Amino acid sequence: MNIQVAMEAVEKRMFEVVNSDIAVLRDASRHILEAGGKRVRPRLLLLAYAACGGTDIPYSVPVAAAVELVHTASVVHDDINDHGVVRRGRPSVNAIWGRTFALLAGDYLFTKVYELMAPYRDMNVILAEATVALVEGETLQASAVKENNFSRQVYYDIISRKTAALFKSAGKLGAKLAGATDDVADALGEFGFYVGLAFQIIDDVLDLTADTDTLGKTAGIDIAQGRGFAVAYAGNRPTAAGVALVDEAPADPMTAIREKVLRGNAVEEAYQQAEHFAALAVTGLNVLPESPEKDALADLAYAMVRRDH
Amino acid sequence: MNIQVAMEAVEKRMFEVVNSDIAVLRDASRHILEAGGKRVRPRLLLLAYAACGGTDIPYSVPVAAAVELVHTASVVHDDINDHGVVRRGRPSVNAIWGRTFALLAGDYLFTKVYELMAPYRDMNVILAEATVALVEGETLQASAVKENNFSRQVYYDIISRKTAALFKSAGKLGAKLAGATDDVADALGEFGFYVGLAFQIIDDVLDLTADTDTLGKTAGIDIAQGRGFAVAYAGNRPTAAGVALVDEAPADPMTAIREKVLRGNAVEEAYQQAEHFAALAVTGLNVLPESPEKDALADLAYAMVRRDH
Repeated sequence: MNIQVAMEAVEKRMFEVVNSDIAVLRDASRHILEAGGKRVRPRLLLLAYAACGGTDIPYSVPVAAAVELVHTASVVHDDINDHGVVRRGRPSVNAIWGRTFALLAGDYLFTKVYELMAPYRDMNVILAEATVALVEGETLQASAVKENNFSRQVYYDIISRKTAALFKSAGKLGAKLAGATDDVADALGEFGFYVGLAFQIIDDVLDLTADTDTLGKTAGIDIAQGRGFAVAYAGNRPTAAGVALVDEAPADPMTAIREKVLRGNAVEEAYQQAEHFAALAVTGLNVLPESPEKDALADLAYAMVRRDH
Repeated sequence: MNIQVAMEAVEKRMFEVVNSDIAVLRDASRHILEAGGKRVRPRLLLLAYAACGGTDIPYSVPVAAAVELVHTASVVHDDINDHGVVRRGRPSVNAIWGRTFALLAGDYLFTKVYELMAPYRDMNVILAEATVALVEGETLQASAVKENNFSRQVYYDIISRKTAALFKSAGKLGAKLAGATDDVADALGEFGFYVGLAFQIIDDVLDLTADTDTLGKTAGIDIAQGRGFAVAYAGNRPTAAGVALVDEAPADPMTAIREKVLRGNAVEEAYQQAEHFAALAVTGLNVLPESPEKDALADLAYAMVRRDH
């Protein structure tokens, strides 16, 4: 199976499915889709599908499109809550259309996931559970920030749900679509899960070390909101008292925690953790016979750690 | 089939399904569910199911619960966009937990719909399409207000999507679950559609004529936002210029349009329209054999017009 051809079909399918006659829904959906994005989740799904012997592009593509649309819907809503104004190198949906229409555009994308998945009986439960987990992870994150309770343990609970659950579903769905056994599907799910953890840890590091231009989204949001890997590993989110201990009267508490993190070993630890998870992910691929797609899955896992945006 | 027993099972199922380990999602979901509401949509679905010969409560209840949760999710998000602070006689989710958590709680309820429906293969498309239409209708409404384009034609397009589509799906799903023919399912869908139109028109009138206590939700929101039946039938939403024509320098443009509407015949017209749609709905029931549930469906249609909240 030609993955590039399948990925192009995923793009096409996503654009087709958001073709509402309500202009703002169509325009806002196209805006966020046209901006691109890494498309890691559908790629992982299609590689898992092919690595398990799948060859049917028209059958697998709608599910890959659905997984990417879950992610897309969630970033539209995240940007509302985080007041993110840049996403994928462009103004965010809320920055252009305002919060009301951004909320509705995110809802629209979620409903389109549901529509895309309607024909895939057994697959629906897998993606529905991942979507529930994603919303729970986002909520847990907002709660932990609010309650000043952003421990390492809570951090891993958050990223397991808000990111790794959807990656896990991508691996599992790819295997299931190919008719893999439950054992193989679970192994591919585990692969996706660990890739998702690695992906999110690096995402958090990039939020800290990269700039908005390179990232294509507002940098420094995590640290500004008091969350993410660095906050968990720096002890807790910055408070006036905590910051006072770090440095003598810094101008800006967020700059202070950022400096503390960069001076400490949180970034190094993050890379170690992410590499650890990528290696764990690749171990899970042992259930598969050799194939170019199996190699591509391993490459994808390690690429998550090496990426700069 | 005992509808009251089935409706109690719907309540139970909805509470079970929102049992997240994330406190705010569980608490906010329970808060909005505990407040009750009219539960018209699941009742319509179950009556349609029984009127078509359905008798299996455990099989039909999750779908009825899903339809009510679509509505519940949408009101949680509506209250964010409308700044509604009272819903079902209680503070709205956004009034208690704030906009961030209300957005996530609404997303959570939408994902739970998807989870509930996952086992119902052919039914999924029907509810997914209704949910898309609902979001489109809300968006069209917000667009029409923004563009000062709230004509009667646009009004009917809005309420067909934001309200009648879900009622239609309830009728159709009830019939399909009972194994009805496509003709009967379409007739029940049409029944639901017209009931939905009648329901929404009266909802809009009550927004204008009833108070917040009776309604159990913030009254006057439609008129304040420049939308709803009265605005469509009064010509257009109030502008400073328009209001000046109506009355000599009124203190508040919204009070002026409300007075204009109440002095005119928009409320009377609304009741006529709603009665017309209820009668149309009942005509559609001719495809069904006589049964207590068929009578109950007709009663439900007329009750939509007579209700005071």
